[in-house]
Amino acid sequence: MAGFPLNHVIEAQQFDRALLAEVFSTADQMRADLNAAQRVYADALRGRIMASLFYEPSTRTRFSFESAMARLGGRILTTENAKEFSSAAKGESLTDSTRIMNGYADIIVMRHHEAGSAQAAAAVSEVPIINAGDGAGQHPTQALLDLYTIRDTLGGIDNVRIAMVGDLKYGRTVRSLAYLLAKYDKVTIHFIAPAVCAMMEDIKDYLDRHHTEWHEEGDLTKVLPEVDCVYMTRIQRERFIVPEEYDEAVGKYILTREKANRMPKDAIIMHPLPRVDEIPPEVDDDPRAHYFQQAKNGLFIRMALLYLLLST
Amino acid sequence: MAGFPLNHVIEAQQFDRALLAEVFSTADQMRADLNAAQRVYADALRGRIMASLFYEPSTRTRFSFESAMARLGGRILTTENAKEFSSAAKGESLTDSTRIMNGYADIIVMRHHEAGSAQAAAAVSEVPIINAGDGAGQHPTQALLDLYTIRDTLGGIDNVRIAMVGDLKYGRTVRSLAYLLAKYDKVTIHFIAPAVCAMMEDIKDYLDRHHTEWHEEGDLTKVLPEVDCVYMTRIQRERFIVPEEYDEAVGKYILTREKANRMPKDAIIMHPLPRVDEIPPEVDDDPRAHYFQQAKNGLFIRMALLYLLLST
Amino acid sequence: MAGFPLNHVIEAQQFDRALLAEVFSTADQMRADLNAAQRVYADALRGRIMASLFYEPSTRTRFSFESAMARLGGRILTTENAKEFSSAAKGESLTDSTRIMNGYADIIVMRHHEAGSAQAAAAVSEVPIINAGDGAGQHPTQALLDLYTIRDTLGGIDNVRIAMVGDLKYGRTVRSLAYLLAKYDKVTIHFIAPAVCAMMEDIKDYLDRHHTEWHEEGDLTKVLPEVDCVYMTRIQRERFIVPEEYDEAVGKYILTREKANRMPKDAIIMHPLPRVDEIPPEVDDDPRAHYFQQAKNGLFIRMALLYLLLST
Repeated sequence: MAGFPLNHVIEAQQFDRALLAEVFSTADQMRADLNAAQRVYADALRGRIMASLFYEPSTRTRFSFESAMARLGGRILTTENAKEFSSAAKGESLTDSTRIMNGYADIIVMRHHEAGSAQAAAAVSEVPIINAGDGAGQHPTQALLDLYTIRDTLGGIDNVRIAMVGDLKYGRTVRSLAYLLAKYDKVTIHFIAPAVCAMMEDIKDYLDRHHTEWHEEGDLTKVLPEVDCVYMTRIQRERFIVPEEYDEAVGKYILTREKANRMPKDAIIMHPLPRVDEIPPEVDDDPRAHYFQQAKNGLFIRMALLYLLLST
Repeated sequence: MAGFPLNHVIEAQQFDRALLAEVFSTADQMRADLNAAQRVYADALRGRIMASLFYEPSTRTRFSFESAMARLGGRILTTENAKEFSSAAKGESLTDSTRIMNGYADIIVMRHHEAGSAQAAAAVSEVPIINAGDGAGQHPTQALLDLYTIRDTLGGIDNVRIAMVGDLKYGRTVRSLAYLLAKYDKVTIHFIAPAVCAMMEDIKDYLDRHHTEWHEEGDLTKVLPEVDCVYMTRIQRERFIVPEEYDEAVGKYILTREKANRMPKDAIIMHPLPRVDEIPPEVDDDPRAHYFQQAKNGLFIRMALLYLLLST
Repeated sequence: MAGFPLNHVIEAQQFDRALLAEVFSTADQMRADLNAAQRVYADALRGRIMASLFYEPSTRTRFSFESAMARLGGRILTTENAKEFSSAAKGESLTDSTRIMNGYADIIVMRHHEAGSAQAAAAVSEVPIINAGDGAGQHPTQALLDLYTIRDTLGGIDNVRIAMVGDLKYGRTVRSLAYLLAKYDKVTIHFIAPAVCAMMEDIKDYLDRHHTEWHEEGDLTKVLPEVDCVYMTRIQRERFIVPEEYDEAVGKYILTREKANRMPKDAIIMHPLPRVDEIPPEVDDDPRAHYFQQAKNGLFIRMALLYLLLST
């Protein structure tokens, strides 16, 4: 292998189409390997140590990375609440903490409550940093697994028509996904959100510059028959000043079974999870429901990244 | 091996005598293996992942399971406070969390604060769930290790005479143990508890239906010479409305060295631990004291269950 | 190997010069092994289990031990907040907890908030206990790695001239280091601290009895050209009753780049970390700055101790 060009994974912008293709094909390999009678990668990272440095708890993301490392034969050091439990509480800088962790681990997966933290850590780190979410900032592995799920279930990304639904203003997953989709040809995006959660101008401008078609639409029902993918997100109550507006918004953007049935037969429903009410459990049996597989795809993507960063 | 008949371990009721015998003989093998110069099972679960999903912290139970998994060569994902740290805090359902964990682990050990949780998780889980305690509900591996300890030290379970002492009303260990003992022949149980902590009618009825002899007794001292096993439990202050009653109850049910000496020479003292005052440290040296060995037996039982659920 | 003479590592006083030399040369081997193309010790502790029992969180110390265990091929059970999460919260004694952990782990690394805890645990433990800090008590592995850093960078410990700066009264690292330095020949120690944080009489008396030269000095700048090592520590605001005194003290004991330049070219700057303001980041590039290497040396020392305690 020619060597993976990235030292760290900090933001979705680091990935161009060629690199995405490499990550996705490696993820395919990892998935096949996990199902193989005789695994090839079971000890690929034997003797290597990953530190999960979570300044903000997120059991799911942490377990996804740790499972990926374990499936590759590596070891794990873990903290689920470093903000409270580590020297950060004594006023230590993140760069000092990173330098010290460099002595103990071969790769650091970092979740932090402040945007820009992963980049700041990477600037001083001698070992790879993977950003597992930094506050309002980026969560690039989520964006990668979302795109991987689309490619995997729809057979490709060019020509995809997608509806993004819910909290598009603060939702970092939909922002990153829109960013990555613009790298592909003839993608159409429908933004469907309450006014207070509308997609921000920066992304719309970006899509315009990349000639990616987008529409803004208030009516979910109307768009459903025309898309290959509905990407649902959770609307958080605290975004709304007037409680009645929240209740109205939430009701409008629930994807019931009846609404799901308006989608094309081979379309897919995605959600970064956790969900609350926006997809009722009755939809889980629908063959279009792909959100649990989407979560599982995170394992393959993270195995691929750990492998590419540590082995090449 | 013909294959272990259980997919999940949720409650003591799943085990009949034949199945108990299989678990116990596997536990014997595990114990022998740990003492062997050349271990046979050291890599039995190599490449398998166990997730410790503890919604309620319990370092001891968690370490016991994790040690069991490590002794079999498996890997561990762990969270000690999922209630606070996981998506449960964002309103995610337990079944969603379980489905997602299915993507990351080959077996899930779950501790939860609500009775029925383990069953609810098992209903949707594609991988085995082991209930490590669900609130006022069950804690089946504790019941198994208790019974294993009796079998191991007294040479069998038929004909055993046992005194259960302390909080019999809320103590889930004594309830489960009474349940399992009824599967054996000519067992005699003495319930010794303050009135507010008396064994509940459902268990007494159950014992009657299974022709298991039981007695209710206020006086610990009187029963001691007549039993093969005293199973002590902690009485919690908060059960008592009148503080004076608590003080009186606690004093009456302390197993001092002097009282222990009234027991037959080859009888055993058990306790699920942690203890507070009900067994003073002076008793620890008594050859009848088996509570630390009992705790250690949990390792063998959990190794056996992990092995049987994942290898057969 | 003749066998390591210690069963537990509880306090710096257990180590004489011969034993220190053995630990340090084992640490050298571990360091060389980690850099070797083909590692010899990668599976040295395969099949062994270390329990991190931290009653007080300390991510750094915990990760350092856990990385050491992982680098030797061993397994880890971990809790970062046992005080809150374990049976200690239910009133269980530390000795009971220790006895139970004996069933699950081959070695216990314990951090506790009360001085004397590690000794109390060791008194009942059948497996080695390593004290990873017990309140105002000891933190012997920190003292060992400090001394190892001096030996490693200055080529030996005899004849070393060292300035200890900052909180010498409550700082357990400087106290332990002073203790160990007295075992070597012709060491000179300069204590440089605000009056409220001055080194206590017990250590001064001890140094006198061992004929170790020491001086008390208010002026950091004056001492700098005459020492081989400056050991900085953090001054905690809460030690000062009068806030103005804190501000004055802190300002006086900051090692700026300008001050560092007054040190001999081959002198070294140490700090147990975390630091706050006492060493500004501008000093990090100075070749004399050794505090990050010092932290990393903790890995080699802990690998050495785990190996010596478990393999010999």
